[in-house]
Amino acid sequence: MASSHPNNVGILAMDIYFPPTCVQQEALEAHDGVSKGKYTIGLGQDCMAFCTEVEDVISMSMTVVSSLLEKYNIDPKKIGRLEVGSETVIDKSKSIKTFLMQVFEDSGNTDIEGVDSTNACYGGTAALFNCANWVESSSWDGRYGLVVCTDSAVYAEGPARPTGGAAAIAMLVGPDAPIAFESKLRGSHMSHAYDFYKPNLASEYPVVDGKLSQTCYLMALDSCYRVFCEKYEKLEGRHFSMSDSDYFVFHSPYNKLVQKSFGRLYFNDFLRNPSFVDEVSRQTLAPYASLSGDESYQSRDLEKANQQAAKDTYEAKVQPSTLIPKQVGNMYTASLYAAFISLLHNKHDSLVGKRVVMFSYGSGLTSTMFSFRLQEGQHPFNLSNIVTILNVSGKLKQRVELPPEKFVENTKIMEHHYGGKDFITGQDCNYLLPGTFYLTKVDSLYRRFYAKKDAATST
Amino acid sequence: MASSHPNNVGILAMDIYFPPTCVQQEALEAHDGVSKGKYTIGLGQDCMAFCTEVEDVISMSMTVVSSLLEKYNIDPKKIGRLEVGSETVIDKSKSIKTFLMQVFEDSGNTDIEGVDSTNACYGGTAALFNCANWVESSSWDGRYGLVVCTDSAVYAEGPARPTGGAAAIAMLVGPDAPIAFESKLRGSHMSHAYDFYKPNLASEYPVVDGKLSQTCYLMALDSCYRVFCEKYEKLEGRHFSMSDSDYFVFHSPYNKLVQKSFGRLYFNDFLRNPSFVDEVSRQTLAPYASLSGDESYQSRDLEKANQQAAKDTYEAKVQPSTLIPKQVGNMYTASLYAAFISLLHNKHDSLVGKRVVMFSYGSGLTSTMFSFRLQEGQHPFNLSNIVTILNVSGKLKQRVELPPEKFVENTKIMEHHYGGKDFITGQDCNYLLPGTFYLTKVDSLYRRFYAKKDAATST
Repeated sequence: MASSHPNNVGILAMDIYFPPTCVQQEALEAHDGVSKGKYTIGLGQDCMAFCTEVEDVISMSMTVVSSLLEKYNIDPKKIGRLEVGSETVIDKSKSIKTFLMQVFEDSGNTDIEGVDSTNACYGGTAALFNCANWVESSSWDGRYGLVVCTDSAVYAEGPARPTGGAAAIAMLVGPDAPIAFESKLRGSHMSHAYDFYKPNLASEYPVVDGKLSQTCYLMALDSCYRVFCEKYEKLEGRHFSMSDSDYFVFHSPYNKLVQKSFGRLYFNDFLRNPSFVDEVSRQTLAPYASLSGDESYQSRDLEKANQQAAKDTYEAKVQPSTLIPKQVGNMYTASLYAAFISLLHNKHDSLVGKRVVMFSYGSGLTSTMFSFRLQEGQHPFNLSNIVTILNVSGKLKQRVELPPEKFVENTKIMEHHYGGKDFITGQDCNYLLPGTFYLTKVDSLYRRFYAKKDAATST
Repeated sequence: MASSHPNNVGILAMDIYFPPTCVQQEALEAHDGVSKGKYTIGLGQDCMAFCTEVEDVISMSMTVVSSLLEKYNIDPKKIGRLEVGSETVIDKSKSIKTFLMQVFEDSGNTDIEGVDSTNACYGGTAALFNCANWVESSSWDGRYGLVVCTDSAVYAEGPARPTGGAAAIAMLVGPDAPIAFESKLRGSHMSHAYDFYKPNLASEYPVVDGKLSQTCYLMALDSCYRVFCEKYEKLEGRHFSMSDSDYFVFHSPYNKLVQKSFGRLYFNDFLRNPSFVDEVSRQTLAPYASLSGDESYQSRDLEKANQQAAKDTYEAKVQPSTLIPKQVGNMYTASLYAAFISLLHNKHDSLVGKRVVMFSYGSGLTSTMFSFRLQEGQHPFNLSNIVTILNVSGKLKQRVELPPEKFVENTKIMEHHYGGKDFITGQDCNYLLPGTFYLTKVDSLYRRFYAKKDAATST
C-alpha cells in the first residue's frame, strides 16, 4: 500500500548560537597594517566572532540544541532523527551527532537516526535535505527531524584570516512548516575542484586559493541557476526570472562575494532574455553579452557592471539577509542559514506567502539552489514566534568586543590545543551566558569533557 | 497535491571491489609470534586485504563506481544522487563524493545531490537510508541513487592489527528493487561512547578499547533488537522472534564478534519468551536468566552458552554471510554490505521471498537494525544477474597472497605517506586488474592524481 507525502515539509523552528567573543574588522585592519577599508569594504565585513578555548563546534551544537528544545518546549523523545552538518573535524571517526546524544540522555531516547554530513560549507544543506526526505519517506515514524550546522572558521595568518567566524544553528524539521520546501525546485552542481580543502590533517587551517574559489562559486551558481530555471519551466510552464522570487539568500563567506553573486544572477537573466531586466541595465550590460564563459568570470569590468545594474534589486531582495554574516563572519555550514535568519529578523512582519531562493555552496565542490515558500504557521511553529526566540538583536548586543591583540593571542592557544590531549582549559566562562556549554578538559585518551554554565552537574 | 511513495524502494544493483593484495592470517600469526589460532580461531579471520601505496579509498571508490555503471550499462546521466559512507579521512573538508564526480565528467552530468556521511562503520548505512528516502521523497526526479561505502582499516602494531581490511562497495538505489527495504522495521540506538575513535588527526590509526567496543556493540544490538521487535509488533500485531527472519547479517569487525552477537540475539529471544527457543537451549540458558544487564555483558560462561545454544541456527541463518568478511577483513562501512553480498553469493538460488535482518554498527556510537525482503527482480536488476556481476569467487581467486614481511613493509610506506604531500607513488600496478584506478602522485599542494590501469588518459 503506497502512502502519501505529508504536506509542506520544511523548517518548523530555528535557533542560532554564536560565541559572544568577537573582534571588529576595522580594528583588525589597523592591527594588521592593511589599508583602511580592506576588510570592511573590500570584503564587506563588519565584525568576526571566534571561539575562545572553552568553546568548540561540539559545545556550540550542544548549546543550540538544548536551547531549541527548551525554548520551543519540545520533548526530546519526540526527536526521531538528528543530523549534523560540519567541516570542523575534531575526530575523524566519531561524529558530532554522537556527542549531541548526551543532550538526550536524561530522556532515555536513543532511537534517533542520522549522522554527520560533510563537504565543506554544504554539509548543513545535505543534512537538511536528508531530514526533509526522511519526513517524506515511508520510514518516517511521525517524529521531528533536527538539523544542526556547527562550524568554527579559522585561517592561518594572512589575507584569509579576517574571513573567519563561528556559529551553530539548529532547525526542527517536519510537516506543515512555516518555512516549507518547494521540493521540485532544486538545481545542483557538483564537481571535483581544489578551491578550498583541508588536506593537512594536523592543522585546523585550510589550503585556500581565494581567486579560484570565487570562480568556482560563480560557475556553480550559473550552473545551479540554469538547472533551477529548467525545473521551474517544466513545473510551471513558463520561464523563471529573478522577479519570480522575493528574496535571494546566498552562502556568505564574505559579503562582497554575495554582492558579486547577485550581480552574476542578474547578468544571467539579461543573457537568458534581455526583457528580464530594465532598459538602463540592458544598456549597462550590452557590451558584455558576447563574452565567453571564461572571459566573463575574469572580467572586473563586467563584475562592476553587474553590481551597478543589480544595485536596487540587491537592496530589496538580498540586503535584508546580510546582517549576521557581516556581523559574525563566515560560519561555514551555518552561513547560509544565518543569512536566512537575518532575513526573518529584518522582514518578519511581511514574509507570509513570499518565496525565498537559497544558494548553498561548499568548496571541493558541491552546490544547490533551492527555494522555500513562507507561511505564518501555527504556534509555537510560526514566523513571529521563531523571530522572537531567535532574538538576533539581543544576541548581537550582548557580545563582547575584544581587541585584535586578544584575538591573535587566542588564536595561538587554539592552534596549540587543536588535535591535542591531556589539557585543562582555563575555564574562563565570564563571557558566556548561562545555559552555554563549554569545554572543561581533554584527558590523556583525547576524551573531551563539557559542562553547562550555571548548571550543577557536568555532562 | 500529495503524491505517493514508489513501491519496493531498495537496492537494484551492487558491485564490490577489494584490493588484490592480501596476507593470510595464519602466516601473520607465525610472523607475529602469537599462539597458533589466535587470529584464525580467536578472531575467526582467514585472510586480510590491504591497499598498497597505489590504492586508497578514493581510487577504490572510483574503481567500483565505474565498474557498476559499466557492468549494468547505466547511463551516468541517469544518476541523480550519489552518497559516500566512509571513515577513512584523506581530506577534512573535501568529500570523497567530489572526487567521484570525475567519473561523471565525460557525461556532463553535474546535477547529482548528496555528500559524505560519517560515523565510523555506520556511514554507509546512513548514506543508504538517505538515498532510499530521497527516492521516496517529493524531491525525487525519477533518477537512480548511488551509494558508495569505501574504507581502508589499518591499525598500529599490536593486537588490533590483524583486524584490518579494505574494500569499496557500490549500490544502485531505486524503486521495484530485488533487495527492498521493509521501511517500517527499523530500530536505532545512538549514544555517546569512546570505544573506537580517531582523535589523533595526524595518524591514520584509531584509538581502540577492544573490550569496551565489544560491550558497546552488544548493548547497541540489544537495544536495536528491542526497538525492532516493538515496531514489528505494532505493524504485524504479533511478536517477532528469530524464526521470523531467514537470515541475519551483522557488521563484522571480525567473525568472532558475529558469532557472539548472534548468540546474544538468541539469548534475547530466550529472555523475551522461553518458548522462542528449543527445549535444549532453554536448559542451557536457564542458569543465566536472572543476570543483570551488566553481568550478562561480562559473563564468559553466558557467552559460551549462547553460542552453544545458537550453533545450529547460526549455521543456517548467519554462516552464509561470513565469507567475504573472513577473507577480506574489516572493511568498516563496507563490512555489513560485504557480508550481505556473501549471502547473495552463497544462497542466490533460494533467496526469493526471504527476509534478511541487517545490523549496522559504528563506534562512537550509532547503530540500526533493519530488514530487507528479497525478490527476483527484473533484468538487469535481478538477483541472479547481481550475483554473476559480483563474481565473488573469481575476485577472491584472483588475489595475490603476500608474505607478512611485505605487509609490514607496505604498512610503513603507508604511514609515511598518510597526510603527506609532494610524492610520486611507485606506480607498481602489476597486481591490479585492468580497469582499476590507482594513485600516481600527490603534488606540493596535496592535490591527488589518479589514473586508470590500461587506460590511455589520466583522470
